[in-house]
Amino acid sequence: MRLLPLVLALSLAAATASGVPTVLRTVTDVPTAVSSSSDALFCDSWRLSVETANAGPWRAIPARCADFVGDYMEGPRYASDSAVAAADSLAFASGAMAAAGAGAAKPAWVFDIDETLLTNAPYYAVNGWGSQEFNETSFDEWVDAAKAPALPSSLKLYNELQQLGFHVILLTGRSEFQRNSTEANLLFAGYKSWEKLILRQPSDIGKTAVLYKSERRAAMEAEGFKILGNSGDQWSDLLGTPMATRSFKLPNPMYFIS
Amino acid sequence: MRLLPLVLALSLAAATASGVPTVLRTVTDVPTAVSSSSDALFCDSWRLSVETANAGPWRAIPARCADFVGDYMEGPRYASDSAVAAADSLAFASGAMAAAGAGAAKPAWVFDIDETLLTNAPYYAVNGWGSQEFNETSFDEWVDAAKAPALPSSLKLYNELQQLGFHVILLTGRSEFQRNSTEANLLFAGYKSWEKLILRQPSDIGKTAVLYKSERRAAMEAEGFKILGNSGDQWSDLLGTPMATRSFKLPNPMYFIS
Repeated sequence: MRLLPLVLALSLAAATASGVPTVLRTVTDVPTAVSSSSDALFCDSWRLSVETANAGPWRAIPARCADFVGDYMEGPRYASDSAVAAADSLAFASGAMAAAGAGAAKPAWVFDIDETLLTNAPYYAVNGWGSQEFNETSFDEWVDAAKAPALPSSLKLYNELQQLGFHVILLTGRSEFQRNSTEANLLFAGYKSWEKLILRQPSDIGKTAVLYKSERRAAMEAEGFKILGNSGDQWSDLLGTPMATRSFKLPNPMYFIS
Repeated sequence: MRLLPLVLALSLAAATASGVPTVLRTVTDVPTAVSSSSDALFCDSWRLSVETANAGPWRAIPARCADFVGDYMEGPRYASDSAVAAADSLAFASGAMAAAGAGAAKPAWVFDIDETLLTNAPYYAVNGWGSQEFNETSFDEWVDAAKAPALPSSLKLYNELQQLGFHVILLTGRSEFQRNSTEANLLFAGYKSWEKLILRQPSDIGKTAVLYKSERRAAMEAEGFKILGNSGDQWSDLLGTPMATRSFKLPNPMYFIS
């Protein structure tokens, strides 16, 4: 789409006389079948489809993309993508806090935990990067060990938001029985304090993440919090009513939760 | 987030004995300042932030990313990303049409036009790929010329959806005075027929795209269409009430429209 554009800005160079090209270029043609693309090209496009939610629900990464996902997670791209998401978040947060002023509602920021504050990359590195069947037993052992590192850009953002005066609320799909190990892991990773840590209660079992998390956001608003920002690696962390003023999607090419 | 995972699937290899890693790896550290990254790394992360809407409103591509955006648009990545979006769309469409059956509502698919059905890459190639100030005069001349090529994967999807029995409705931010050139361009690019082509009326001037397009989707539903799918390159093509059952974000790193 085009028109009423906000594309004004830098004006680095003068436009050509008319600005209309005289020689038409054609768009690089699409592979006849997507599956005939190289793995690198296909897997990068698959990753974008996941991050934009185009892919819809999915149960495992494509078999041909296991090496790609590993390289992405362990190389500079995951760190860079996460850092830009954090920079976007902070840019919004500063302005939003200034605009909110000393109003009645308590300005809040909601964070998911896994693949948002903490990274489970060390677990997935030895479990096929999302290509293997999910093993709840071994993942629960990993959670119990409480050794997941912080996603560095999220820890930095977290501290910056607290300095700005945000009430930080943690809303996770982990269950209440994992509260102790979750708190221990957050402290281990460098997260020092939070307004509240909300975990799934027995009555939440079987609810989608969208429903469970939306219900909890509604409860926060009823308690007088104004949810200005929300950070999560799944769209199910972010969508549903009520939504935060702005939502920030962190990268996660390893798994999908509805 | 983690738990109640849908990550079951391929089970390519047996899990390690416990599945829990004994040696903890650390996540690649984030650049101290995002701006100190290489252009390639930064611009790719910036592009992801645009595609996920993390970036929020923006007025021009970062100056350092003009070459990156040009390479992306003219190389295989734009074609590949578009093709995967189309494949996602078709996968959903087939199932949705089967599920809808011969019900009362007319199954519809809404398409945006610019950077969705048609590509303006030939125009932006000689206008700085989004780094220059938007020139409404020269862009309107380009629209009048009616020579924008089809985005190949969208043309293929379009024909497939019509064969499946979808009512295809075109909803564009272009204005009513551009109807003739828009129809001529669509035909030139290979789009043969559509249920309706909706352009901005004088009463729509000044409305955001989200408002204008949501109003038109509501009108479609009142007319008995069930909007199963919606394809657009801007989140403002897709968000707002009512939304399609599934929305598909096509790539566009060149400009933003609110």
